[in-house]
Amino acid sequence: MTVTPRHDGRAADQLRDIRITRNWLDHAEGSALIEFGRTRVLVAASFTEGVPRWLKGQGTGWVTSEYEMLPRSTNTRSDRESRKGKVGGRTHEISRLIGRSLRAIIDTSALGENTIVVDCDVLQADGGTRTASITGAYVALADAVADARSRGLIAKNANPLTDSVAAISVGIVGGVPVLDLDYPEDSTAETDMNVVMTGSGGFVEVQGTAEGAPFDRDELNALLDLAAGGIKTLTALQQEALAGEARARRV
Amino acid sequence: MTVTPRHDGRAADQLRDIRITRNWLDHAEGSALIEFGRTRVLVAASFTEGVPRWLKGQGTGWVTSEYEMLPRSTNTRSDRESRKGKVGGRTHEISRLIGRSLRAIIDTSALGENTIVVDCDVLQADGGTRTASITGAYVALADAVADARSRGLIAKNANPLTDSVAAISVGIVGGVPVLDLDYPEDSTAETDMNVVMTGSGGFVEVQGTAEGAPFDRDELNALLDLAAGGIKTLTALQQEALAGEARARRV
Amino acid sequence: MTVTPRHDGRAADQLRDIRITRNWLDHAEGSALIEFGRTRVLVAASFTEGVPRWLKGQGTGWVTSEYEMLPRSTNTRSDRESRKGKVGGRTHEISRLIGRSLRAIIDTSALGENTIVVDCDVLQADGGTRTASITGAYVALADAVADARSRGLIAKNANPLTDSVAAISVGIVGGVPVLDLDYPEDSTAETDMNVVMTGSGGFVEVQGTAEGAPFDRDELNALLDLAAGGIKTLTALQQEALAGEARARRV
Amino acid sequence: MTVTPRHDGRAADQLRDIRITRNWLDHAEGSALIEFGRTRVLVAASFTEGVPRWLKGQGTGWVTSEYEMLPRSTNTRSDRESRKGKVGGRTHEISRLIGRSLRAIIDTSALGENTIVVDCDVLQADGGTRTASITGAYVALADAVADARSRGLIAKNANPLTDSVAAISVGIVGGVPVLDLDYPEDSTAETDMNVVMTGSGGFVEVQGTAEGAPFDRDELNALLDLAAGGIKTLTALQQEALAGEARARRV
Amino acid sequence: MTVTPRHDGRAADQLRDIRITRNWLDHAEGSALIEFGRTRVLVAASFTEGVPRWLKGQGTGWVTSEYEMLPRSTNTRSDRESRKGKVGGRTHEISRLIGRSLRAIIDTSALGENTIVVDCDVLQADGGTRTASITGAYVALADAVADARSRGLIAKNANPLTDSVAAISVGIVGGVPVLDLDYPEDSTAETDMNVVMTGSGGFVEVQGTAEGAPFDRDELNALLDLAAGGIKTLTALQQEALAGEARARRV
Amino acid sequence: MTVTPRHDGRAADQLRDIRITRNWLDHAEGSALIEFGRTRVLVAASFTEGVPRWLKGQGTGWVTSEYEMLPRSTNTRSDRESRKGKVGGRTHEISRLIGRSLRAIIDTSALGENTIVVDCDVLQADGGTRTASITGAYVALADAVADARSRGLIAKNANPLTDSVAAISVGIVGGVPVLDLDYPEDSTAETDMNVVMTGSGGFVEVQGTAEGAPFDRDELNALLDLAAGGIKTLTALQQEALAGEARARRV
Repeated sequence: MTVTPRHDGRAADQLRDIRITRNWLDHAEGSALIEFGRTRVLVAASFTEGVPRWLKGQGTGWVTSEYEMLPRSTNTRSDRESRKGKVGGRTHEISRLIGRSLRAIIDTSALGENTIVVDCDVLQADGGTRTASITGAYVALADAVADARSRGLIAKNANPLTDSVAAISVGIVGGVPVLDLDYPEDSTAETDMNVVMTGSGGFVEVQGTAEGAPFDRDELNALLDLAAGGIKTLTALQQEALAGEARARRV
Repeated sequence: MTVTPRHDGRAADQLRDIRITRNWLDHAEGSALIEFGRTRVLVAASFTEGVPRWLKGQGTGWVTSEYEMLPRSTNTRSDRESRKGKVGGRTHEISRLIGRSLRAIIDTSALGENTIVVDCDVLQADGGTRTASITGAYVALADAVADARSRGLIAKNANPLTDSVAAISVGIVGGVPVLDLDYPEDSTAETDMNVVMTGSGGFVEVQGTAEGAPFDRDELNALLDLAAGGIKTLTALQQEALAGEARARRV
Repeated sequence: MTVTPRHDGRAADQLRDIRITRNWLDHAEGSALIEFGRTRVLVAASFTEGVPRWLKGQGTGWVTSEYEMLPRSTNTRSDRESRKGKVGGRTHEISRLIGRSLRAIIDTSALGENTIVVDCDVLQADGGTRTASITGAYVALADAVADARSRGLIAKNANPLTDSVAAISVGIVGGVPVLDLDYPEDSTAETDMNVVMTGSGGFVEVQGTAEGAPFDRDELNALLDLAAGGIKTLTALQQEALAGEARARRV
Repeated sequence: MTVTPRHDGRAADQLRDIRITRNWLDHAEGSALIEFGRTRVLVAASFTEGVPRWLKGQGTGWVTSEYEMLPRSTNTRSDRESRKGKVGGRTHEISRLIGRSLRAIIDTSALGENTIVVDCDVLQADGGTRTASITGAYVALADAVADARSRGLIAKNANPLTDSVAAISVGIVGGVPVLDLDYPEDSTAETDMNVVMTGSGGFVEVQGTAEGAPFDRDELNALLDLAAGGIKTLTALQQEALAGEARARRV
Repeated sequence: MTVTPRHDGRAADQLRDIRITRNWLDHAEGSALIEFGRTRVLVAASFTEGVPRWLKGQGTGWVTSEYEMLPRSTNTRSDRESRKGKVGGRTHEISRLIGRSLRAIIDTSALGENTIVVDCDVLQADGGTRTASITGAYVALADAVADARSRGLIAKNANPLTDSVAAISVGIVGGVPVLDLDYPEDSTAETDMNVVMTGSGGFVEVQGTAEGAPFDRDELNALLDLAAGGIKTLTALQQEALAGEARARRV
Repeated sequence: MTVTPRHDGRAADQLRDIRITRNWLDHAEGSALIEFGRTRVLVAASFTEGVPRWLKGQGTGWVTSEYEMLPRSTNTRSDRESRKGKVGGRTHEISRLIGRSLRAIIDTSALGENTIVVDCDVLQADGGTRTASITGAYVALADAVADARSRGLIAKNANPLTDSVAAISVGIVGGVPVLDLDYPEDSTAETDMNVVMTGSGGFVEVQGTAEGAPFDRDELNALLDLAAGGIKTLTALQQEALAGEARARRV
């Protein structure tokens, strides 16, 4: 693959610097501060016994997510959704995407009647906040599951995690398909696609949008190839983060 | 393509009965009652001069959409979002999708500083409400543009419509890729994908979700092939609907 | 009665064309599309077992209603109440009126601990939306009761319907009392009155409002006479609609 | 008229003790504490220059009203609407009724581009809160108009008040038509009617509701006769209250 | 202490005229209309059996408060919080302060699993609404406790009231520490402090705020001395109000 | 002062480890991550030209603050205020306290018609979140002012900062007055006081609350002495943080 003149010097198929700081929080059952370049998302996975009313008595658990941006995570300050009294469409949409992505690798029967809520709060935004969220959320989720198991809240021989999951954005910028768009790229892309895949390489979500002209099948294929490569790297970084010993949580 | 034993007897690549009743409303600048089988969506396109504050003075127009389901459009009644005091995530998400799809075929400079709001209200839901909405919305939008032109609100030589747009769902049901899922199919699909394409065959949106197991590249390709066929038929039906003379609107 | 020069040529005591399309919906226990001229209201009656908490254990049922207008049912588009985050006073007021009107002909003991919610959604508005709603609601309610009986959810020998109910508007327009005002008449009426009556001729609601000068006792009497005549015709049309065989509902 | 055995010993056509304390507040342009027996409503009329945006530039003014009950005005405490985050249907309905009643005796051209908001806050409720509100509101409104005139905000030779307005409830209790129902009567009435009339005897609003069995024309007539008598007395009491000298307001 | 030239002629350590009208309401278990000069607050204490869910089964009761201002209690009308759909920060803050102040003199075990809600509605505001609220709230609370005891809802030998509580504002106005600021003083004070104390002289709350320049330790001490004197007088007035016989409540 | 057996081994007058990481964010005009032991607050100061409508044309600026806790900042997860659709009383109260504290050291005339919003988001809570917020907010505010000056948005010779400001909590725990309470101390304190002081030693806010028994004048004095010592240290740490060179902001 040729090196394109991306504004920050990256190759077309190159991720930004990715950092996963596991157990960034003291209270949460699982947590991570994940950074995709300047984008920083604080992820916290909260495990609670019991399930929402509509699931009671079925023997299965529930995993959901809430995403939100701090008001000054962006270049100009946005009003807080709490003050506006309503959650915006974009916030809802991304929260739902993260939740679906996590449920794709969860065996809710093995989880038992327990709930895990994964909060993704964007401390700083520079493009790719939803993909960073999903990628970090898996790490926090894995720790929350491990914590519950060690406390006997999930049976030792049950494994609610059926795979890992990660996400990356791809897009066509200046006519060239590129991986992991930062904000300047994202805001000028002709086509923007978010791809969520399992560690074993299956597709969980493909969301492609023509921002300018419609895209064709060849472009779609080029983007999917790029994404698959990026996901492979992210999966390795997740495994690496989880390989160390988790810091003891403060209950 | 072989005929699969779909519960309603359709072939895998067969659409439901599609009906577009143009100008179903007397007041709206453009309107249509669109039916995909039992799914019925009432679409109204409202043209108003002027644009939202954040667009003023730029010489470009705005097209947006709002989607909502009537409380008893579904098999069991849902609470009204107006009574709950908040719009749900799914409603927001679909509204945004319709808006983006329409903007993909609109030249906002040619539209001038005018706004078109396209309301899609689901009177009866049986799967595919968002794809029926987009497909019907194009018809209503085209009529609203024509009406504005005939009234001199858009320059006669300007054409804000750069193409047509339609949408269809595809999915893998019982291991078989099928076109235009109804509710029983949709609720049991392993993979569900909504595809929005222009009349000239470009992709505007591709949204695929693994509801059960992740899907692979071959399945993705089969689904895209099915979708392209369906869109072709829908495009022809849109053209047919628009070919007749529009009923005079009551101002 | 003399023929007054009403703008659409009707006699002072003449209703608009009334159409009741029973079972317009496939899912609802009872439904009707009712048209008073250009005014079109979609009514759906939803039967559910059980009652709101405050009624539990008393052996009586509950009937209530929700009314709403689609954003482009009117000549210029109105914002959705769901997006504004609150239900307006007029919407509340009409919803409450419809609910009271229906409860006037319901024996809640015979209904048992069951609830029927009647949704009235105005697809197109040209005056008289509340009276069309009440008139159509009775048809949908009667079908929902029949459906519940046929399914054994209400005892076969119990009859929750003690009478029928219908409604019509009357008003003084250009000094002349007229029946069933359309929007142009309604917006210029000096006095506007909505009358709800049972099939056997009793008053359920009388709501008269002086829009311009106060009205006197003679005018009030003339309006009530007109209304009684209109209600008689509407009652016959309701019976006719209910006389046919109901289309099988899709459960 | 015969004396009926009402639970508090009143004759069928007898009002409760009515007290109007004018200028109960120091700040408001007009105010009154009005009592219908135990029912106590604090009314404040606020005059401000200018009109809502939708009325600007038409040279006419605006009069509106807001009604609300204190949480412990009733026998058991109700939650505050401010805490519930939404205004209930009954509150909206009564606010709108008061506003319409006041506008019936206002010449908005004579008022000029000024707004008067009349707040009716129920300090204690024992039936008839809306009729007490309207009756007290007229007194506060008249004082606010006089205050504006004395300050030159309304032309000296313009008179925005075209008449006076008052309201009373009537109903059928235990088969007998009675005037000015208190709460025990109101909660057991078969028919309940609120009548708003001008000082010169014209009808502004007639709102009759069958709470139990439908009512007939004779009953309606008996109720309207009772109401007319009550309004006459209330009108005299309003004039008496306004005849004295107004206490100087503290600006 | 020297007599300062306060705008209303009061000495620096002099309260306004204080009036407590006990049992102003007929329904509430305890109530008072309290006046600090022109400031008038209607206080109602509502006793209900049971406690909020989070307290259930612990054998202890709950006392809380809600404060609100009528829209025209102030010199210019404010919008209702119920119409705005949200409760403002100041309203929340004062409601919480009143609740904490009352709980400081309540033995929740002696109260048993019962709840008392104290509503403080400002009918007219002229400075000191929160201190008048707390001072009046004690009187209403004491009556509600006595009422519950007389009805056997609290054990006769249990005394939930461990002390009395009252509140007063102090501040530095024109360089001079003064007691019980009215609105003109409050709006020009350099430092403003609200002090809540028990009848036996302990501090419950001290909330001092530098509105202009920061204040020093000597000023703080002078203000606390003034407050202690004012509280002593208020405590005597509370006892006097409670010494008479309570008017029989209307259940 | 004697060393008391605090649960974490601190002396009664000893602060927790305080860390101020200046310029933690890339976009904000001023920012800091401030840590009081385990308590971590992310502060962002956003400078914008212009003022709210009610201040326009007066030549003065505005400084305000919004405080919020992330859902899993605490030991058990709390619901988001954005999802609940309303901001809680405690959140409002602390936001207002921070805003007042900052305005105490701002010369709004020197600021010109500009607005600074200081967001304080609690990433992890272990007691003292409001005092950490105020202390960190000053650092972010100072940087935002410096940034605006360097860009010429504030006149070079104008200095909107008249002093510095910091805050600390003190309380009586187990009968002993202690400085800078962490969560375990805070939740068992008999008296809890938050003190806000300027760098030059004046009081800006004193908020003392008896959580258990009322406190007396001697206890109040002991707490104020402790606070003054703590503020001195915090002021030095603020100066130290601001002494270094600020990292270049990314516009």
